[in-house]
Amino acid sequence: MDNLDIIEKILIEAGKLLENRFSGVFTYKNKEKFDLVSDVDIEIEQFLIKKLSKNFPSMSFFSEEIGEINNNSEQKWIIDPLDGTVNFIFGIPYFNISLALESKNEIIEGYVYNPINKEFYYSKKSLKKSYLNGKEISVSDTGTISESLVAFGYSSIYKNIEKYYKKWHEIFDHCKKGMGSLSPALNICNVARGRIDCFIDFGCSMEGQAAGGLILKNAGGIVYNYDLTEWDYKAKGIIAINRNLQEEIERINKL
Amino acid sequence: MDNLDIIEKILIEAGKLLENRFSGVFTYKNKEKFDLVSDVDIEIEQFLIKKLSKNFPSMSFFSEEIGEINNNSEQKWIIDPLDGTVNFIFGIPYFNISLALESKNEIIEGYVYNPINKEFYYSKKSLKKSYLNGKEISVSDTGTISESLVAFGYSSIYKNIEKYYKKWHEIFDHCKKGMGSLSPALNICNVARGRIDCFIDFGCSMEGQAAGGLILKNAGGIVYNYDLTEWDYKAKGIIAINRNLQEEIERINKL
Repeated sequence: MDNLDIIEKILIEAGKLLENRFSGVFTYKNKEKFDLVSDVDIEIEQFLIKKLSKNFPSMSFFSEEIGEINNNSEQKWIIDPLDGTVNFIFGIPYFNISLALESKNEIIEGYVYNPINKEFYYSKKSLKKSYLNGKEISVSDTGTISESLVAFGYSSIYKNIEKYYKKWHEIFDHCKKGMGSLSPALNICNVARGRIDCFIDFGCSMEGQAAGGLILKNAGGIVYNYDLTEWDYKAKGIIAINRNLQEEIERINKL
Repeated sequence: MDNLDIIEKILIEAGKLLENRFSGVFTYKNKEKFDLVSDVDIEIEQFLIKKLSKNFPSMSFFSEEIGEINNNSEQKWIIDPLDGTVNFIFGIPYFNISLALESKNEIIEGYVYNPINKEFYYSKKSLKKSYLNGKEISVSDTGTISESLVAFGYSSIYKNIEKYYKKWHEIFDHCKKGMGSLSPALNICNVARGRIDCFIDFGCSMEGQAAGGLILKNAGGIVYNYDLTEWDYKAKGIIAINRNLQEEIERINKL
């Protein structure tokens, strides 16, 4: 089996755990103010590290809750066991498991699995294509912000929303429709498959964006850092768009 | 068959259509600025009215897109064929079909069906209980806003978010976690089942709140109009809480 088959099997299994836990009882707490973590994050993380370690014993890991596990390999799995924890806790079935393979400071494989809709996204750098459940996907051809669906990575922290608005009011006020949406990897993948046109998040972490970023690039989209510099998956924040919006978003960024 | 069995059957059938359309191709447009409607809203509405008319030939209807169909009955079905249209369009599987039976200016039956998670909520006024997939549900016992999960009915219309914040900054800044969430009926039902503690929406319509409001009341919660007056399902807006938060939210409302 190549990585794809192994990872798909592991993610489907972890996804079943996640789906069962979603409709059952779980506990959660604040990591810091407004930042929630559930016992499910920890459980899925442990499950993934156990399974991945067994299949890839020499590799290193970085995972959202546990941090680094250094096995002196140049290849490292970057894991977000539950991207969209807040949605999960609020009863909103929009969350995923996100897994990226890093080698020599770049992402060479990306996997995002949505266990509710059974959507398995993946890409490999060398493929130059991205897939959803085996079918090639591509970004939308929407040509202007005024025709665009835009997701922003905010919850109800008002000073954060203000920050977005200050920078991107041209988009808030003139896109077709915008909304806050709290699962970065799925938002990026929804740009990659052409369901939405743009995703803007100043705070999402490496674990939440590494896999999705590669999937979007290989689906014909553009990924930037939040300041519209060239994407560095280790930097906090992301902007994800289809290629047609490049000129307009770069113009708005300079306003 | 009583209404419950008939309605459950109709909603499950409509839910299958909705689920298939969610992963397929559909079109949408602005009704007015920032307000989207899809061809799926219309399709489900037509399906429901056809099925309900066949089973309840003498009853009147009010439905989100089509408006009034007056059959001179004092009983009227209030229909939201797709509550959460924006989520549906953005690829976020958090939407529902909402159906309420009105008689003599009150809601006597309420049904909310989430076709993605196969969650069927219902209540009847006379039951004084509410059910999710046949099991009785009740609100949380969270006692303070600082421990509460709070959903607000906003998208990215900044002047609306400002309006919420101006009125409810005590909640924005001091709840455990808040977020914008765009399916009023499911948010109300999530308060009813104790998944979240509070839902605040100044704009939701009769069709989106009538069924959920009855379900919440009969699950032990409190439903107000947005200005915290006694709930009138015909008035725009809703505030939904568990009973323990009553004193605190009434205090905050007076600030």
